[in-house]
Amino acid sequence: MIIDIHGHYTTAPAPLGEWRDAQVAALTDPSVAPDPAGPQISDAQIRETIEANQLRQMDERGIDLTVFSPRASFMAHHIGDLSTSTEWARICNDLCARVAELYPTRFAAGAMLPQSPGVDPATTVAEIDRAVTELGAVAVNVNPDPSGGHWDSPPLTDRSWYPVWEKLSELDVPAMIHVSTSCNPAFHTTGAHYLNADTTAFMQLLTGDLTGDLFGDFPDLRLVIPHGGGAVPYHWGRFRGLAQALGRPDPTETLMKNVFFDTCVYHQPGIDLLLDVVPHSSVLFASEMIGAVRGIDPDTGHHFDDTRRYVETYAARNALTEAELAALTETNARRVYPRLDQRLTAQGR
Amino acid sequence: MIIDIHGHYTTAPAPLGEWRDAQVAALTDPSVAPDPAGPQISDAQIRETIEANQLRQMDERGIDLTVFSPRASFMAHHIGDLSTSTEWARICNDLCARVAELYPTRFAAGAMLPQSPGVDPATTVAEIDRAVTELGAVAVNVNPDPSGGHWDSPPLTDRSWYPVWEKLSELDVPAMIHVSTSCNPAFHTTGAHYLNADTTAFMQLLTGDLTGDLFGDFPDLRLVIPHGGGAVPYHWGRFRGLAQALGRPDPTETLMKNVFFDTCVYHQPGIDLLLDVVPHSSVLFASEMIGAVRGIDPDTGHHFDDTRRYVETYAARNALTEAELAALTETNARRVYPRLDQRLTAQGR
Repeated sequence: MIIDIHGHYTTAPAPLGEWRDAQVAALTDPSVAPDPAGPQISDAQIRETIEANQLRQMDERGIDLTVFSPRASFMAHHIGDLSTSTEWARICNDLCARVAELYPTRFAAGAMLPQSPGVDPATTVAEIDRAVTELGAVAVNVNPDPSGGHWDSPPLTDRSWYPVWEKLSELDVPAMIHVSTSCNPAFHTTGAHYLNADTTAFMQLLTGDLTGDLFGDFPDLRLVIPHGGGAVPYHWGRFRGLAQALGRPDPTETLMKNVFFDTCVYHQPGIDLLLDVVPHSSVLFASEMIGAVRGIDPDTGHHFDDTRRYVETYAARNALTEAELAALTETNARRVYPRLDQRLTAQGR
Repeated sequence: MIIDIHGHYTTAPAPLGEWRDAQVAALTDPSVAPDPAGPQISDAQIRETIEANQLRQMDERGIDLTVFSPRASFMAHHIGDLSTSTEWARICNDLCARVAELYPTRFAAGAMLPQSPGVDPATTVAEIDRAVTELGAVAVNVNPDPSGGHWDSPPLTDRSWYPVWEKLSELDVPAMIHVSTSCNPAFHTTGAHYLNADTTAFMQLLTGDLTGDLFGDFPDLRLVIPHGGGAVPYHWGRFRGLAQALGRPDPTETLMKNVFFDTCVYHQPGIDLLLDVVPHSSVLFASEMIGAVRGIDPDTGHHFDDTRRYVETYAARNALTEAELAALTETNARRVYPRLDQRLTAQGR
């Protein structure tokens, strides 16, 4: 089975965007506030947007199931305040849960959190609980920079994050560390901010014990750094050397027990490097389709984000066994996302 | 000849740091202001710090010449105001020029600029001129984020930067895009901020025509992105795909005529990837020794930053000709840094 642990509802029906536009407009003109119950979206509208897009390409690429969360760039936690984000997260999470209900064998829900700049992360715990226990979410996305590119939140190892890590540990749910849109003109959202956030988060975790020993305190916490770990695998020697200089253990041996990189790296040499340097037990198959890069690579004739090709080419060239390849595409994900595993097991898969 | 285009005076004699400490202290207590003429540093002190450190390791590694600029993390443009940075840049640039005078065949000077947050980049033009025409600097370092991790400057393609690009074009001098220390607790300086800045700068340049067509306006401008281009080569497919989506030409074919990556990537797989995906005409040998990562890789028994080994291993494995290897280690640098080439030519090299 091929599990893609990183998909977003980038093609949500138009009423969702219209509802959000009204919510944003209401920040300055309360008279245009949308229905707090959320937009009216029919099952047919969901089916239409999913079947013509994600599901079609999943079928074309042989992807069995996608962990499907709200569109990352639309989380936009910097807009409005905590109540804005609370309302928006609830609506977006409900919608992704409906996708997973409509296609129980093809999608499992992930959830965004109602974060807001300068607001205590503890305020997100209720929505984590609701999304996981009521909506069946198997993962959540945590934004390390709710400001949208101003980076004024404390590092992920700061004590203020602990209620989030506690709740995730209690529920046995992993978090993907994923920023949203950049409202800083210095940072292109998908070409700089996303990758920078991945690198930044990894280094925050590597230096963990300088501000609190995160994985000492939460030994079972599992954090997924998307987009192939940002710059980290390419600079694996730098990070190993920095760990050494900081008196930290080699990340290969320790940190990568709790930290995972996905395979959202859109060319063969990148995937080759990822799989050459990072322990395979810490790599999770993903494509982020339909996401930042939707075109076809003229050099290969295939979609840039058709990452299954790269992973399978690597497996063939390096003579991975079936079980070794399955670790990358399925069994690692079932281990890191136990609620996904339970869901699949209940389906007899 | 092996030219290392990326070295900093990280081992400068103690009086330099003491002078800076006094300058910083004087921001709140003017009575402790240091001598505006700068610290007293003898030639013997310079020789001692260079010969025991950079020069020793250059000899051990067979590096003939290093482009040597002030310590990047000490530029700290966020401290004080424009006059603070003007004084500090002058003193640091004078010191690097003295190193190049004392060892004319082993070092060529690079210069830092007197940048300050929120200050018009045009104010750096006088120091560029002085460093190049009076001190003999062959390159300058431009900080895309003088705030030290708050990223409140406009992108490098913004018109406010044009006086800098004009002056560099006029002098035929390349710029390395290099941030300084991070004063933002989210960003570890050498493990996140440096790499993020590289990725950010590349994406600013890739999206250039959205804010002004930088290399259309300055066709001969040459910008060096250090640390192997940050996350860019590892995500080359992403950047090619984003360029396609933005209606920009493939960066392989166009942008890389004006943009160069150095080889400060501290393990073999990283260098292999860099040289597999980026045109070799756009790669410049460098190590940033003595820099962020000073230790020995227990897996190889060699210094992480002994990048010559990786480049030469790549060359041997891929059967590069002597001329192809020399492009990476010498001739590209002589083309991109014409004032370095003139200096070498005048030395009969």
